Amino acid sequence: MRMYDIINKKKNKIELSKDEIFFFINGVTNRTIPDYQTSALLMAILLNGMTDNEIFYLTDAMIKSGDIIDLSLINGITCDKHSTGGVGDSTSFVVIPVLSALGLKSAKMSGRALGHTGGTLDKLESIGVNVELSNEQFFKQVNEIGLSIIGQTANLCPADKILYSLRDVTATVDSIPLIASSIMSKKIAGGSDVIVLDVKCGTGAFLKNIDDAIKLAEKMVSIGKSFNKKISAIITDMNEPLDNYIGNSLEILGAINVLMGEKNDLYLVSKALLHEIIRLSGIIEENAIDDKIEEVINNGYALNKFKQMIEMQGGDISFIEDKSKLIDTKYQFDIIADKSGYISSFDTEKLGNILCTLGAGREKVTDQIDHFVGARLDCKIGDKIAKGDVIGTLYVNKNTDYSSQILDCIGFSTDRISKKQKIIKIIR
Amino acid sequence: MRMYDIINKKKNKIELSKDEIFFFINGVTNRTIPDYQTSALLMAILLNGMTDNEIFYLTDAMIKSGDIIDLSLINGITCDKHSTGGVGDSTSFVVIPVLSALGLKSAKMSGRALGHTGGTLDKLESIGVNVELSNEQFFKQVNEIGLSIIGQTANLCPADKILYSLRDVTATVDSIPLIASSIMSKKIAGGSDVIVLDVKCGTGAFLKNIDDAIKLAEKMVSIGKSFNKKISAIITDMNEPLDNYIGNSLEILGAINVLMGEKNDLYLVSKALLHEIIRLSGIIEENAIDDKIEEVINNGYALNKFKQMIEMQGGDISFIEDKSKLIDTKYQFDIIADKSGYISSFDTEKLGNILCTLGAGREKVTDQIDHFVGARLDCKIGDKIAKGDVIGTLYVNKNTDYSSQILDCIGFSTDRISKKQKIIKIIR
Repeated sequence: MRMYDIINKKKNKIELSKDEIFFFINGVTNRTIPDYQTSALLMAILLNGMTDNEIFYLTDAMIKSGDIIDLSLINGITCDKHSTGGVGDSTSFVVIPVLSALGLKSAKMSGRALGHTGGTLDKLESIGVNVELSNEQFFKQVNEIGLSIIGQTANLCPADKILYSLRDVTATVDSIPLIASSIMSKKIAGGSDVIVLDVKCGTGAFLKNIDDAIKLAEKMVSIGKSFNKKISAIITDMNEPLDNYIGNSLEILGAINVLMGEKNDLYLVSKALLHEIIRLSGIIEENAIDDKIEEVINNGYALNKFKQMIEMQGGDISFIEDKSKLIDTKYQFDIIADKSGYISSFDTEKLGNILCTLGAGREKVTDQIDHFVGARLDCKIGDKIAKGDVIGTLYVNKNTDYSSQILDCIGFSTDRISKKQKIIKIIR
Repeated sequence: MRMYDIINKKKNKIELSKDEIFFFINGVTNRTIPDYQTSALLMAILLNGMTDNEIFYLTDAMIKSGDIIDLSLINGITCDKHSTGGVGDSTSFVVIPVLSALGLKSAKMSGRALGHTGGTLDKLESIGVNVELSNEQFFKQVNEIGLSIIGQTANLCPADKILYSLRDVTATVDSIPLIASSIMSKKIAGGSDVIVLDVKCGTGAFLKNIDDAIKLAEKMVSIGKSFNKKISAIITDMNEPLDNYIGNSLEILGAINVLMGEKNDLYLVSKALLHEIIRLSGIIEENAIDDKIEEVINNGYALNKFKQMIEMQGGDISFIEDKSKLIDTKYQFDIIADKSGYISSFDTEKLGNILCTLGAGREKVTDQIDHFVGARLDCKIGDKIAKGDVIGTLYVNKNTDYSSQILDCIGFSTDRISKKQKIIKIIR
């Protein structure tokens, strides 16, 4: 078998066989296929697409390129969620504690910030949580308290890592078959029984377009089902930051607020994700799910689970007890509306990039993060604002006022604007 | 400017600017653009095409990536021909001598055999011709006797060389914009005033399909005109070997036969190419051209020019005086028809590959050629053959009879088959 012939087939829109796709992925993994051949095939895939069979084999081959996590050591139903990435998206810190408060298990491997979107691991590290547990510690903790979030320990989908780094520099990221197989290979190798996907759509999301988001979500759900996973996807709005709090320590604060009973957009999206996971797990009658979620929030069980996790992973619980410690920067600049009207739009990606530049994120993987940099935005699309209103605060450690740049990301309208619907579509 | 954005534009079918194409080709030439980005762009070009403006700038950038031959030192009108490559195609050895016998100048740079098609330089080396002249010797010889054929001396279109080697391993060869710009950049950098292209089409050609051949020819003629060249293209049949003689020394023999007055398919195609070149040069009234060609063949002037060239480049003229020396191999095997009927087809590429394997060509650029290996085929499509007829001879230096493999390349039919028209279309 020759890589040349595989490229040639895809170029001519002929379906690749299972053997050909495994040959390609094995060659990528063991570095016998040169990058210039891989990138030619990636471009041909991007432009000519892939059939469902091809996407299944590509996912399968990437899963088998590395370790597959065996969660059979964990007693109970294991659950995972995945977000395609957004701004002010701290749903994991609401969802995982609620699930464990209800007796479901989450052995979650997460990623770091890159570009304009935040990373779960960096947020946890802002309060001293150790995200580098051994597999034994990880499994032991999940069995004991029901939840743990760590960085990827095992050699998970190495082929995907190599492909992704090549896609990133050859303009071949935005291919639905490639995105779907990349995400799903990691989720399936992660070993959970139930998977719910949060596919973000809008100005702060990777996918700006609702049709693309639906296509990607459908493809991923279909892949998950082929691998016998209980799976669904929710398409959620990312035309504005999800939560008011954006940053690393700030998003921990946002999640704690919801775990303490605040009813905002973060709560709405978290509840929708929880509803799907719990429904798929089958542990509660569907019409009782939402009440159960409320119950473990109201009685403090969910917040307690979050605290347990932080403590067991060496984090500083005082951040939870004194939330003001989470917004403790040297300088704070108010963001003041310079006109009256209705908030009509956010350039959410630009907003994320500004905060990234200020230290909240990474432009390159080697960049250092300032865990306390971030913003609180007290406005959402549709809100009525008067000139001079304080609509947010910027938390920074350098004495430079970027509040006007943040303000530039916010669109105003004199006409009344309706609020954004957060849950756009559920794909089961 | 970033290569990433250039790939992304082409992927999204947005026309690349002159600056972007020059940035790409400069980056290829000075090796600052990694191969994996180049191959992603090549695949995007293959699948999304190029506009005429893009093809013009690509050709221009490749020409300017290296030296441009200045033929102003040559007195008179300089002429060049180019064949896209075929089997038994020795037209250069007919065309160039006739042109110089008529007072036109040919300072021709040619290539070597690769794959199933032969190479002009290898054919000349079979009779000891030195194809590595200095520029001074080359120009001096053309001014003195009107013709010279050598290998590429200067640093001609280095970007094309790099791109071609990458296209060859990434299944991105068969793109009309890439083929047209590759051929034309070298022809234009070669400096001749008049260029005539022989675009082969059929089972032994790179292009099997007449529509593709027409598209390529039209594109190349249009590029040539943009660079103010006098240019036309002839689409000729390559569904069977052009001449009866195939090989290196054997094709010299085939050409000499035509220069001595033989009227066969090689003569027909050579005459058509000559007619176009002479017409474009403007030195003879169009209706007198064919008579003039006949004249310099009949009076021996053309053959004499070929001899002069061979002698001045250190070749062995005794091969011309005793043609039997050109078919002097240790073993000769007759090819005997195993059925009666009409010759209906040739698998010309397979035939070329068999002869290549026997030593007449190269599979890899580093392979050695056996200059005397080849075949004489005494049959053409449409010929009536009786079982037992000797329809050809295989000339080899190893005592293994491959005549049945050659026979396998020839199709027979019990129905009468018409002869192939050699000149399919002229594009001016």
